Amino acid sequence: MTDAAHSSTTRPVTELTKELIARPSVTPLDEGCQTLMAERLAAIGFNIEPMVFEDTTNMWARRGNEGPVFCFAGHTDVVPAGDLSRWHTPPFEPTIIDGYLYGRGAADMKGSLAAMIVATERFVAKHPNHPGSIAFLITSDEEGPFINGTTRVIDTLEARNEKITWALVGEPSSTLKLGDVVKNGRRGSLTANLTVKGVQGHVAYPHLADNPIHKAAPFLAELSQTHWDNGNAFFPPTSMQIANINGGTGASNVIPGALEVMFNFRYSTEVTAEILIERVEALLTAHELDYDIHWTFNGLPFLTGEGPLLDATRHAIRQVTGYDTDPQTTGGTSDGRFIAPTGAKVLELGPVNATIHKVNECVKVDDLEQLALCYEVILEQLLC
Amino acid sequence: MTDAAHSSTTRPVTELTKELIARPSVTPLDEGCQTLMAERLAAIGFNIEPMVFEDTTNMWARRGNEGPVFCFAGHTDVVPAGDLSRWHTPPFEPTIIDGYLYGRGAADMKGSLAAMIVATERFVAKHPNHPGSIAFLITSDEEGPFINGTTRVIDTLEARNEKITWALVGEPSSTLKLGDVVKNGRRGSLTANLTVKGVQGHVAYPHLADNPIHKAAPFLAELSQTHWDNGNAFFPPTSMQIANINGGTGASNVIPGALEVMFNFRYSTEVTAEILIERVEALLTAHELDYDIHWTFNGLPFLTGEGPLLDATRHAIRQVTGYDTDPQTTGGTSDGRFIAPTGAKVLELGPVNATIHKVNECVKVDDLEQLALCYEVILEQLLC
Ligand SMILES: [Zn+2]
Ligand SMILES: [Zn+2]
Repeated sequence: MTDAAHSSTTRPVTELTKELIARPSVTPLDEGCQTLMAERLAAIGFNIEPMVFEDTTNMWARRGNEGPVFCFAGHTDVVPAGDLSRWHTPPFEPTIIDGYLYGRGAADMKGSLAAMIVATERFVAKHPNHPGSIAFLITSDEEGPFINGTTRVIDTLEARNEKITWALVGEPSSTLKLGDVVKNGRRGSLTANLTVKGVQGHVAYPHLADNPIHKAAPFLAELSQTHWDNGNAFFPPTSMQIANINGGTGASNVIPGALEVMFNFRYSTEVTAEILIERVEALLTAHELDYDIHWTFNGLPFLTGEGPLLDATRHAIRQVTGYDTDPQTTGGTSDGRFIAPTGAKVLELGPVNATIHKVNECVKVDDLEQLALCYEVILEQLLC
Repeated sequence: MTDAAHSSTTRPVTELTKELIARPSVTPLDEGCQTLMAERLAAIGFNIEPMVFEDTTNMWARRGNEGPVFCFAGHTDVVPAGDLSRWHTPPFEPTIIDGYLYGRGAADMKGSLAAMIVATERFVAKHPNHPGSIAFLITSDEEGPFINGTTRVIDTLEARNEKITWALVGEPSSTLKLGDVVKNGRRGSLTANLTVKGVQGHVAYPHLADNPIHKAAPFLAELSQTHWDNGNAFFPPTSMQIANINGGTGASNVIPGALEVMFNFRYSTEVTAEILIERVEALLTAHELDYDIHWTFNGLPFLTGEGPLLDATRHAIRQVTGYDTDPQTTGGTSDGRFIAPTGAKVLELGPVNATIHKVNECVKVDDLEQLALCYEVILEQLLC
């Protein structure tokens, strides 16, 4: 037995992760990652359905024709490498140092994809005639504009009434150690693009102008100090952040005619987008502002409460790691927001996220192997 | 007598104004305007002293060696023509239509320069041995960065202890009819460039960031609502305007690390720049902001109260127009701010300013001729 063969036997997840990292699949590129996954899945009886939309490569793979449908969901694309001079190893040359695998996508989320494949291979080997179905929903556009990715695959499935019962998203949910946190929901995200209108003029003649910055300042002070809700057992309180503010011509003697403000809500299930919009617009009216506002719905909040998927995941993490996981709904959005509205129960479990989107992204080699064990136990719990 | 000769005899100010407008002296160009003026002044006994600093053409001309020194001050440069398609006549081809002379600089301030020359020619013809001195301080950089213009001429005069007793600036002070308003002072101008510092982060993790827009909003609300003073008999209340505000990366999911705000004070003699700075910095401290602030002193306030210059001007306007003038200190800055600190009394009288810096800038032909009469009476009052 050669060293390489030995290595691939004892650390199969790490080896596949390395193969995926070596493919520089910066959004929306896939660079053959899905082909590699498809070959492994086809070999164990999956039906492979590539779904290419515009610049985005997606894959729907399914083994079995019956329900319930357990679906692994994830993305092959990665964010750009960033400042190459700050990487200690080349970002697309997977390198193991002191038990950590370095490379862009190691934690977000090529390690999870590899763990899903290895777990499925093991599960199918033990249970070739498992009940229900196992599916993979993979996109190359999760880090990008998410227009031609998961959302279009879901549209396609919905159009033919193909349903997912449980979706396990491989996003790196863990904070300090593998599985310490799973995401059993996500807050909603709502963005406002506000224009406060005034009248342009010269600073020496303020009575002929109407300064939109002066008019908006008390509104912005109140907006930023508003308490939106208390959150609940599953969600932290709703949070609003002003992300951008711009007004003025650059000159020191011109009162601008308009002020542009962009702010974003991350909201709990204690409110709705409609309630937030109503409250903001009431505040604008109370401050007697002349304004235009444009709202963008980035994603509805969703929650996977107590039930088989959360139970199976809790059980798996305890069995593999020896400790209890903590279900949370904090943090950013994920493609789970596109899957949940179909009625699927969605949960996110992946490696430690400390280095994602940064230089020197890495994942613990042992965690990758343990993650596959967790995924395998979850399959056992749900499909046996 | 030809029509042209007849015209130049009966409307000498208008004719000289046309010659000046035909020279496209956009800041800092002079395009021979000062040479034209110098020839007229040299012919009546002025000593001409060109003062070229960098890209700026200036002229100091003086008739007489004794005090008091009455000085006409003004600029040959004009602002750019702007949108040519919106001009009804070419901006540098002086054109008279229905009693108005059109062209860039007609009102700001080539008409005033022509009126100064014609008034001086008439006065010297009548009083070749007038007491004191008459001077002209002319620059080609009033509309621009005002670095190499009036301020450097004043520096030169100060270095040789040459003093101006009274300065009459030809800025277009009139609002509805010629001479209805004179400016007997100007507010001070003070600009702040403020950076409010926070901690950049992701909108999904606000507890790891510190949003400088949220922190600054209550400060900006209070700043814009602050009452600075009541003004006084000569000055309107001090006014503050936020001219520029910028924060954010453009993305909707990033909390910016800093907010940039530029604001400008136009202040009365009831406060000083030092007092305003102290009050703003106390407000920043009260709001517990982490900030950098950079102050730019654009000009001290000045005031020419009751005395010979204001008396002479009042008398001249009443005599020529039949109505009383209104001395005001409102409006923008002028080069008067550089002359006043030497101890000179400074007053501004020029044509109606309704069209200055706009397309189709124009001045009433009759006003130009009347303005020369006003200037001549002022000379009579002060130097006879
Ligand atoms: Zn991801
Ligand atoms: Zn001017």
